[in-house]
Amino acid sequence: MPEIVAILGAGSWGLAVAHLLNNRGHRVRLWEFDPTVCDRLVRNRQLPEKLTEFTLPEEIQVHNDLAEAIVDARWHIMAVPAQRVRSVVRELARSSAAPDANVVNLAKGIETESLHRMSEVLLEELPVSEGQVVTLSGPSHAEEVVRDMPTTVVAAGASEAVVNDVQRLFSGPYFRVYESRDLPGVELGGSLKNIIAIAAGIADGLGLGDNTKGALITRGLAEVTRLGEAMGARPETFAGLSGIGDLVTTCASRHSRNRFVGEQIARGRTLEDILNRLPMVAEGVDTTRSGYRLAERHGVEMPITTEVYRVLFENKSPSEGLLDLMGRELKPEIWR
Amino acid sequence: MPEIVAILGAGSWGLAVAHLLNNRGHRVRLWEFDPTVCDRLVRNRQLPEKLTEFTLPEEIQVHNDLAEAIVDARWHIMAVPAQRVRSVVRELARSSAAPDANVVNLAKGIETESLHRMSEVLLEELPVSEGQVVTLSGPSHAEEVVRDMPTTVVAAGASEAVVNDVQRLFSGPYFRVYESRDLPGVELGGSLKNIIAIAAGIADGLGLGDNTKGALITRGLAEVTRLGEAMGARPETFAGLSGIGDLVTTCASRHSRNRFVGEQIARGRTLEDILNRLPMVAEGVDTTRSGYRLAERHGVEMPITTEVYRVLFENKSPSEGLLDLMGRELKPEIWR
Repeated sequence: MPEIVAILGAGSWGLAVAHLLNNRGHRVRLWEFDPTVCDRLVRNRQLPEKLTEFTLPEEIQVHNDLAEAIVDARWHIMAVPAQRVRSVVRELARSSAAPDANVVNLAKGIETESLHRMSEVLLEELPVSEGQVVTLSGPSHAEEVVRDMPTTVVAAGASEAVVNDVQRLFSGPYFRVYESRDLPGVELGGSLKNIIAIAAGIADGLGLGDNTKGALITRGLAEVTRLGEAMGARPETFAGLSGIGDLVTTCASRHSRNRFVGEQIARGRTLEDILNRLPMVAEGVDTTRSGYRLAERHGVEMPITTEVYRVLFENKSPSEGLLDLMGRELKPEIWR
Repeated sequence: MPEIVAILGAGSWGLAVAHLLNNRGHRVRLWEFDPTVCDRLVRNRQLPEKLTEFTLPEEIQVHNDLAEAIVDARWHIMAVPAQRVRSVVRELARSSAAPDANVVNLAKGIETESLHRMSEVLLEELPVSEGQVVTLSGPSHAEEVVRDMPTTVVAAGASEAVVNDVQRLFSGPYFRVYESRDLPGVELGGSLKNIIAIAAGIADGLGLGDNTKGALITRGLAEVTRLGEAMGARPETFAGLSGIGDLVTTCASRHSRNRFVGEQIARGRTLEDILNRLPMVAEGVDTTRSGYRLAERHGVEMPITTEVYRVLFENKSPSEGLLDLMGRELKPEIWR
């Protein structure tokens, strides 16, 4: 059944999800905070710096006024960068949102101030019940979704009924949605993998091979799982689409901004210079700060996160960081 | 402490491990079954069709006589293709091997006749105790190990002391060995991942993207883990180096013969034609037969393995196989 859907944020993923839901026959409204960007999108139906070779279908309405975008919408889809989610949902709470609207979070990150996950931020700011919040996550580059490449994701939430609604809302022949009840696991996996993607990018920038990347991905998954368990997530979630699935796709991909940051750092550019020239947010940089602090708080050993933190923020040389990882004492593969 | 080590099999991985152990200061003897190949290796110190730009160090002795190769060797390292292991260890059992020699298995596969794992074959044929058999597995392309690219693997066996000896034997600044007690898990992960690598190659050959590959890797890991659990392995082992680590490296790599087979099948070549022109064994083709039969025997649903089996052996079209995977009913992410 067609639904009215408001997507908040016209970044690459917001645009791709607008395309996807429009293709499913839903009535899609897209809200963009920046009036200049919004104007360009209304006029040209394109934002090539965010998603190349993509034209927004004419049926999709574009709004700069949040209240207009959400009128009668049963679904609010959060597609803004993680550190912007709180301010946007505060505005959403002030607008006349339908109280029974469900919220689907697409942001992948951990708030650097509060160290809260996205669904926690949503529940703190919106008058919704726990079951009304669902996070959708998994290996899903926007560039491939708009080209109808087969893609799978996972929808996680406390209410089975709402999660099943999200599955039906999004699923189609090239987009398959699995369900999960483990919201902490899905959110932490989707966020923390960006730290490991920076590490994989560093290995690429140093000219290392697939063996090294396989090691970083696997040991990265192990440390992310350790932290997740300490924070109440189920370990098996990290072996799923929002964990290892997203991790391998991000680490392999030429589309990943986080992998790119690591690669450029290893080639000697400064973090400031790299971030100034990126047209989009590389969530992994902030997530490295959050992940590092969460590891300290929960007393979890995270050697890769620690080395990425030192390379990004304490001027440690990337090759030294990598060698320090290889030189650690010999261990059993599974330890906590 | 330097040891005398006999490596059985001069394939790409046998050559790379010879290089590695020679660099650790061990006395390495390399046995090659084929007298012509053995002669070429003795004369030229190179087998470019197996490992390009690699010259075998002069200190490494090359033998065509198995009994000569193993004299006084405390370690027998099995580096022959999986379907050849039984005949080689039968010959080893007939030779005057030191009864206290330990055996390290490097082969990744499941015997198609018996459906036994490699360590089971070794224990059936050799007069050794369970603790004397260790399998070494993980993301370790030979091409990168001989170039000293940082690499990690896992050593699995029933005896902690022998596993620790294997760690010390192999470990060095660019080669890190973790330990595991889960021999079934390490062997099944290292073998069954080659089926998923063929599926990833099919996706490559069809021109699909990173999202699809991320899906195949994750759902592939899930079905391999399901079968592993049914066969007595620990599920967490499949999230480790011998499972997901080897899987992602194989699926991403231009070095992987199994990924290559899938890619060529998707481009319309016949399996026979592809295998006839490969200079080395693509273990995944036999493993697809074994995995398919094991799934039936244990009553485990393995949708990706089933589709790869149909494409390889029943002339199903690769794109149809992939669409059938995407069109399955919507499911929870974790199910057994």
